[in-house]
Formats: sequence, structure tokens, C-alpha cells
Amino acid sequence: MNRVVMKFGGSSVATTDKIRDVAQVILNRKKTCDQVVVVLSAMGKTTDNMIKMAEELSKNPSPRETDLLMSTGEMISASLMAIHFKSLGIDSVALTGFQAGIKSVGSHRKSKIDSIEPQRIVDELRAGKIVIVTGFQGINASGDITTLGRGGSDTSAVALAAVLGADCEIYTDVKGIYTVDPRVRKHAKKIDQLTYEETLEMANLGAKVIEPRSVAMAERFAVPLYIALNTGDVEGTYIRKEDDMEKNVITNISKKDNVLLTIVNESFGKESRITECLKNLADGDVNIDMISHARDKEGNQIISFTTDLASKALVEEILSTMEMDFEVVVNLSKVSLIGSAMRNQVGVAARAFGVLHDEKIEYYEVSTSEISISYLVDVDKENQLVNAFADEFNL
Amino acid sequence: MNRVVMKFGGSSVATTDKIRDVAQVILNRKKTCDQVVVVLSAMGKTTDNMIKMAEELSKNPSPRETDLLMSTGEMISASLMAIHFKSLGIDSVALTGFQAGIKSVGSHRKSKIDSIEPQRIVDELRAGKIVIVTGFQGINASGDITTLGRGGSDTSAVALAAVLGADCEIYTDVKGIYTVDPRVRKHAKKIDQLTYEETLEMANLGAKVIEPRSVAMAERFAVPLYIALNTGDVEGTYIRKEDDMEKNVITNISKKDNVLLTIVNESFGKESRITECLKNLADGDVNIDMISHARDKEGNQIISFTTDLASKALVEEILSTMEMDFEVVVNLSKVSLIGSAMRNQVGVAARAFGVLHDEKIEYYEVSTSEISISYLVDVDKENQLVNAFADEFNL
Repeated sequence: MNRVVMKFGGSSVATTDKIRDVAQVILNRKKTCDQVVVVLSAMGKTTDNMIKMAEELSKNPSPRETDLLMSTGEMISASLMAIHFKSLGIDSVALTGFQAGIKSVGSHRKSKIDSIEPQRIVDELRAGKIVIVTGFQGINASGDITTLGRGGSDTSAVALAAVLGADCEIYTDVKGIYTVDPRVRKHAKKIDQLTYEETLEMANLGAKVIEPRSVAMAERFAVPLYIALNTGDVEGTYIRKEDDMEKNVITNISKKDNVLLTIVNESFGKESRITECLKNLADGDVNIDMISHARDKEGNQIISFTTDLASKALVEEILSTMEMDFEVVVNLSKVSLIGSAMRNQVGVAARAFGVLHDEKIEYYEVSTSEISISYLVDVDKENQLVNAFADEFNL
Repeated sequence: MNRVVMKFGGSSVATTDKIRDVAQVILNRKKTCDQVVVVLSAMGKTTDNMIKMAEELSKNPSPRETDLLMSTGEMISASLMAIHFKSLGIDSVALTGFQAGIKSVGSHRKSKIDSIEPQRIVDELRAGKIVIVTGFQGINASGDITTLGRGGSDTSAVALAAVLGADCEIYTDVKGIYTVDPRVRKHAKKIDQLTYEETLEMANLGAKVIEPRSVAMAERFAVPLYIALNTGDVEGTYIRKEDDMEKNVITNISKKDNVLLTIVNESFGKESRITECLKNLADGDVNIDMISHARDKEGNQIISFTTDLASKALVEEILSTMEMDFEVVVNLSKVSLIGSAMRNQVGVAARAFGVLHDEKIEYYEVSTSEISISYLVDVDKENQLVNAFADEFNL
């Protein structure tokens, strides 16, 4: 007996015709898998339309009621899918978050899955049904419906796969994960397999195929992940624990546009001002990144960090309020090389720096992790660097 | 401390603007009532649109999944109403059928309320909140969402009022219950008060203001009902237990269009054939009415009954299959006089028959109950008879 959890996003089930198409993909998969659980997002723009109505009634809609409102989107897509299966003579059942036993904790609009009591799902699978579960939602200890925030349906799918001992397949509108964004490099290769760590690093560094949160959960519970096109007929990318497979040293190049560099000159020379500054930025919910620190000849501290363009105005406001001196550089891009084999291979950094030298590309910052190197460069050098890296590392 | 359950139908909450208007009616009512529970139907055509999608996917959509699908309509209207209240600074909470403790039994699409566990509603009311409950839905012993069938939201409201010891107010797009359909008689009077029995009789005899089912429940649990316009500024109709109030002998004239008279000549003279015929009609879900029975000079049984036009083809098919002889008369109307005081007053029947004689209106059938008399007449005599009755009984 084998089990799989298949997840389809909102664009894959945007119309009743698309629901029919996805049903066929599920039925094809069912031929080689005994028990299939399907996790669905809300149809296309359903959730957006609901939010629009809520915002007509309130500038700041109540999170509890917004969760109840939004949770109906997945109930609609899930029940329509089960209705379609039954019309084909295939037994199926649509389960809401609470019916599927998905218990959540934490704030509305961004709750987390606390536990899953899968008895009903298991019973329905044993009865031979295709089980359709609403993604993105759970029920908390007060009996209130909560939503799981960004990437919530992926998280639902991974959590169900973990508790059911199943593989998790995420179907989307891309063919898998690529070595380089196919829009930048025409002949970018699809990656056949990745480790969780590499995928996480890529997701955190700007690749948009899957939310880091669900990858982290898959890693924690060792759920095999598979990311593929929602037509089901193109081989996708497998994400697993690291094993002995021979691998390219670099598996992926990511880029994150519109990164902003801010430099703070701390002429007062007091550590506490820097700490206060970082604390205020954190309180303002500003994500900062690539932090570097130095001292000039006069003993002044110099700290620099990056953030995204959306946060620029807020950062400037916070720093101005603190009467800090700072400089801003915009139109930058962070280009990252990622590969879990990097840690076992010497000379990767040397080759990377060599590429920047040969291409005469200046960098504003560099940061490294065990499995990645990131360079902050002018945005108009971004594509040149991505292609040069791809040539150097044979991607 | 006083409590009220206010119910608003789908047309009253069809848009976010209408939700705002209804919220104002609720707030006005809150000035004179400590604890307010609001029961809402789905917004306007929401449910129809959902059924349409289901029918795109299945000729005969699964009842269980259709219930789940349809139940989202009330979740949307209820959460939007609570969002609006909270944006006005008024504490409110939207509860689904299962959160409100509404336990259902019976088939999907036409389940019944089995019991209500009102603890959460009571807690929320005590916390000072306006509690918005989704109408039309409950949860059964399997944990599945069911809908309550036609008039389900009225039933939800009455059942909640019963368990909460509250009055039940049904807000609609008419000003209350009228002595005669205002479209037939321009100066029809709104009725200030009615008994449950009278209301039931009227609902069963064709008045469309409220479903008989919810009136019967209100009677069983002695829930005071009030039916009024959804603007809240016109006095409506109170429905209560019969008391000593002085009343007009006739409180209402109802009519039911397109009633069909079918006459069956049972030339075989066997009781069992009639019984079989009635059984087959019942199996075919045909509602029959005004049954009369006689024997002709040759000893043949003659049975006649009425049904609605929609059932005509089915009745003909059933009778033909049984090889029964029958005649059909179409274009008939059943006009009914209703008044609970009728039982204590002599001569009402005589006055009613007198009206038909004076107006030279022939009738095909007559039937009586303790509190009503109904005549089956040609549909083109209907308005003449309704007006003549209204003159005779001062309505």
C-alpha cells in the first residue's frame, strides 16, 4: 500500500474546466498509487474577491472573521472536486480543515499547524475514496477556523503527508525547479533532485517556486517532496534528504531584485545606538540581510545591511527619527550560488570571485553560508553575472 | 435581560451596502434589547451561483458535497456582517452552524435540527457581543455539514430562539402578513397579530411569507414570532399563542394558483386499486390535496383530488401506467378563508357559501378544517371571489 498527497494551487483549479483537467491528473496518478489525498487552494481569484468585500466594509477587517470568510474559498474548490469525481463514478469525499482533524495554533491570518488527527482521512482512504482536503485552514482550540498564512496550502499538504506517512507532490504552473530563472537564461536546466537544505536556501534567497516554511517542515519530518507541472506529464524536481548521489557542486543560481543597501555611520561610537537601531528596525517588521560591520580610522562604527525596496521608506523613517546619518543605494540585486556539495569542495569561492573579476563586475557586499555565496551587484549587471556563473558552473 | 433572534434573508444582505443597512436595523433593535443573535442567509444569488458550478461538473451533484458547498454562502454573509460591526467598534462574532452547536439529523439537502448546544452563543452574548449565526446549516453526528432545506434559515432562527428563550423576528421584503394578497386587493390590511395555527394554515394554503415548517416549530416551543419589513421601521405581524384578544372571525384569505383537479373512475370497484393508486402517487412524491370520495349508482368508486400544475405530467403518467380512467381539469384555483375564531362562531360557512351563490361562482370542490374553508374555482374567478370574501368578512 502506498499513499500520496497531491497539492494543487488556486490557478490550477480556477474554473470548472480546470477542475476537470486536474481531476484527470489525479486519476492518472491513482493508477500507480493506492491511496490519494488531494489538497486544494481556493479557485483563482476567489480569495481576492472575498478580501475585497471585507475591505468595502472595514479598513482593517477583523482577522478572526477574515479567516472564516477566506476559509470558504477552499471549501468551494474541494467540494466541487469531490462532486466531479462522484459524477465520474469515483468515490470521493471533501473534508474541511476541522473535518480533516487539522488543529492550529497562533494568531489568525498566520496560524501554524499544531497537530493532525487523521482518523477520518484514514477511514475514508480505507473505504477506497479519493480524499479532498481544503488547504490553508485549520481549527484552533477555541473551535475557530484559522488560516495558515502565506504558502499555507503547501504547509497543509506537507503536514498531511508527514502524519499519513505519504510522499508530498506540489503541482504548480512551472515544470519544477531550475538551475537559473528560465526568463534570464533560455537554456536553464530543470533540476532533477535537490536536498531540503538547498531548496530552503533557494527559497530564502528569492526562488519563488515553494515557500521556505513548507520545505522546512518537509525536512523536519523527512517527507519526500516533488514539485512538478500541474499537467502531470512532465518530470519535475524531487526534494529529499542528502544522500550519496553524485552532484554538481552548484545546483542553483538565485537572484533577488531591488535590494537596497543602506550604510549607517555611527559617529557617536556607541554600540548601544547600533543595537537600538537594529531593534527599531525589527520592531518595524523590516527584514534586514547581509549585515556587515567595520570600524574606520577614527574609530567610528560603520554598519551596512540590505533590505527590500518595499521597506526603503520605512527604514529611512526609522533612521531619520533616530537622527542617524545614513546613505542609500538603490537598484541593486543579490545574486546567489547555491549547492549543498559546496561545503565539501574547495575552490568554489575562488572560482566565483574569479567570475566577478573576469566580467569586471563590482560588488557592494558579499555574504556566505555553508552552502551558498551571495553577491550584491548593480541590477543592470544581474543577468550578465547569472549567465557568467551558469557558464562557469555548467548549469 | 431580554434576548432576541433576528433573521434576515438573502435579498436583505445581497451586497455590502445592504449589509450596512441591515447592520443599522440591528443596532437600532439593540437599543431596546440586551442580547441580540442574528441569523443570516447567503448573499443574494451566491447559492444559485454555487449550484450552477456544481451542475457544470455533475448532472446530479453529490448531496453531501453540495451541502458543504452551499454552507459557505452563509459563512460569507455572516463573517462580512461581523467584520462590519467590528469596524464600527461594536464587538461581534460570526459563528458557523457547528460553532453555534446546531446538531442536525437526516438526509443531506433536507436535514432537520436535532438539538442545539448553545454554550458558545451564550458565552459570546454574555461577553457583550452581537452574535451572527449562519442560517440553513448544521452538523450531523458524522461531523458532516448538512443544510436544512427550504426555509432552512427561518428554521435555524426559530430553533435558536427556542433554545435561548428568545423572541424570533423574521425580517423580509414585505411589511408583514396581509389579510389578502396586496396584489389582488389594493387596500388589503396588514394583520397585526395571528395565532400559530392561523399562520400555519395560511402558509400551507399558499401564503408565501414564511415556511410552514418554522411556524410549526415556533408553535411547538411557544416561540413568539414577528414578521416585518427588513427596514425595521414599519410595524409587522406578531404570531403568538391564541389568547383572549378580540378578533375578526376571518383573519386571512389565501389562494393557491394552478391547482389541477383529477377525477378517477374506479370501474373495478376494488378498494385496493384506490389504495394502490394513492400509494403510487405518494411514492412518486406527488402532494395531493382536497381528496373526496363517492360511489355512483352502479357502485363504482369515484375519487377526486387536487395537485399542483408541476405534478400534472407525473400524475398522468402514474395513472396511465396503472391503466386507470381519469379526467383532468386545469386552470383552477383554491381560495381559502382562514381564522382561528371560526371554530367558535356559527354561520361562517353559510356566509361563505352565500358569497359564492351571490357571485354566481361555481366550485369544483370544497374542503374544511376547524379553522378554514377552501373552495376550488376556475382561476378566472379567483380575484372576484377573493374580493367578495374580503367585502363580506370586512378584511
